[in-house]
Amino acid sequence: MDTSILRVGPGFRLADVDPSSRPGFPEEDPSGDDRSPKKRGRAELDDRVSYLSDLQERLFASSTAGATDSVLLIVQAMDTAGKGGILRHVVGSVDPQGVLITAFKKPTEEELAHDFLWRVERRVPGPGTIGVFDRSHYEDVLIGRVRSLAAPEEIERRYGAIVDFERGLVERGTRVVKVMLHIGPDEQKERLAERLDRPDKHWKYNPGDVDERLLWDAYQDAYQVAIERTSTEQAPWHVVPANSKWFARLAVQQLLIEALEAIDPQWPAADFDVEKEKARLAAS
Amino acid sequence: MDTSILRVGPGFRLADVDPSSRPGFPEEDPSGDDRSPKKRGRAELDDRVSYLSDLQERLFASSTAGATDSVLLIVQAMDTAGKGGILRHVVGSVDPQGVLITAFKKPTEEELAHDFLWRVERRVPGPGTIGVFDRSHYEDVLIGRVRSLAAPEEIERRYGAIVDFERGLVERGTRVVKVMLHIGPDEQKERLAERLDRPDKHWKYNPGDVDERLLWDAYQDAYQVAIERTSTEQAPWHVVPANSKWFARLAVQQLLIEALEAIDPQWPAADFDVEKEKARLAAS
Repeated sequence: MDTSILRVGPGFRLADVDPSSRPGFPEEDPSGDDRSPKKRGRAELDDRVSYLSDLQERLFASSTAGATDSVLLIVQAMDTAGKGGILRHVVGSVDPQGVLITAFKKPTEEELAHDFLWRVERRVPGPGTIGVFDRSHYEDVLIGRVRSLAAPEEIERRYGAIVDFERGLVERGTRVVKVMLHIGPDEQKERLAERLDRPDKHWKYNPGDVDERLLWDAYQDAYQVAIERTSTEQAPWHVVPANSKWFARLAVQQLLIEALEAIDPQWPAADFDVEKEKARLAAS
Repeated sequence: MDTSILRVGPGFRLADVDPSSRPGFPEEDPSGDDRSPKKRGRAELDDRVSYLSDLQERLFASSTAGATDSVLLIVQAMDTAGKGGILRHVVGSVDPQGVLITAFKKPTEEELAHDFLWRVERRVPGPGTIGVFDRSHYEDVLIGRVRSLAAPEEIERRYGAIVDFERGLVERGTRVVKVMLHIGPDEQKERLAERLDRPDKHWKYNPGDVDERLLWDAYQDAYQVAIERTSTEQAPWHVVPANSKWFARLAVQQLLIEALEAIDPQWPAADFDVEKEKARLAAS
């Protein structure tokens, strides 16, 4: 699929993105495959797992020879938009040894005593690693703004601080992939209702989810501003319509693949004499 | 499969375990399935993924309601025995959000300045988490002993310290699953040779691997002593013959399943009024 259409450009308006759309994914298969888009999408996701996995292994391998490249996937979304599914079905499809996942919760006292970037700086991926932020420093300009958790001047300062921070990451060899999973309010209502209907899903529900839901428009505004202010050439946002879970997963998988392809990690050359080692091994 | 046969009991002798054996796995399928053991074993591994995954999700869910249970899988092995494959194919089959993997490397200066347990204590799994140690504190009585990295009295002290440490973990709600993947020296030779033959595997090879290999017998002795001294009722060792990769993976998957079944984690009951929340959601 083509992800360039998901990339935020000049004049972007979140309100114009249809959460039920599947941009970049052909509704009719050009080769005549007559399965539904969902079936084709799921099959494509499965088909690409080994390719993504191979790229991830190369990234990890290259770091053992000194390459400093890494990937940071930042996932932001309204509740129920499918962050967990991305982690499980996309990130979870590669070798867990090469992945560092951080779920950022409500900040602790210690975290609040530091600059808002302090806790995220400590969790950026090292060489060869795919880091994943499940929520991130963007919370500090999203809920931070909607709930006035910081003064307006401080929120204002943060947009620039984020741009600087991410530029630094990119300069040090980290590909920053920023994704907003975009669902609609009706879809969220259905998903929350399902959590309430199923006892095995109750643990995923929190009464605060409805409180946040009541602020839907304010959150959309906060996303609009955050995306506008922090989408840069080197670390652009991608807004992924997420009413179709399979589409969102496929899109994020493809974004990860593209980030890794751009790195183009290579198997490192042996830093030892292969023939000599073969002889030593044979004699052992 | 039946894993009790893998559990270390009184009089255990590592030298008596055939690394090519598949104890507990029927060579002939009782129901008449005439596929090879390897094919049946792989199919069983795949079949059990969703069950393991479900148990893991329950463990994680139960912790959100205050349950303190966790699992710690400790994997020790000679080089090439398949630790990576266990992490990738067994651990990697569950939701990565509920897993904390630590690969213990050669200790840093800072780590060496502390007691040998300092670095492992910092990485024990929290409630609801499956922790995995890829190598562990056992290195400090394995390579530590073989290469005399500590005085004999200190090595001696460590066996008891390990037993105490693990008892503490168990008392605080952690199921400790200790696995030695047991390969034979010929199998290792083949696997190392493959790494030397394939340029995409060179990065996995280290000339030090042959140095360690030359100390094979000393390592087997060190494992024998470590296993004898630290296999307890509450945290027993399992020696898993690992010449067949599929068998080792299936056995470790089963051990994880059994640890989770013993916890028997439950979906937490709602800590909110479900009907009231349904009404609030409907009105939102």
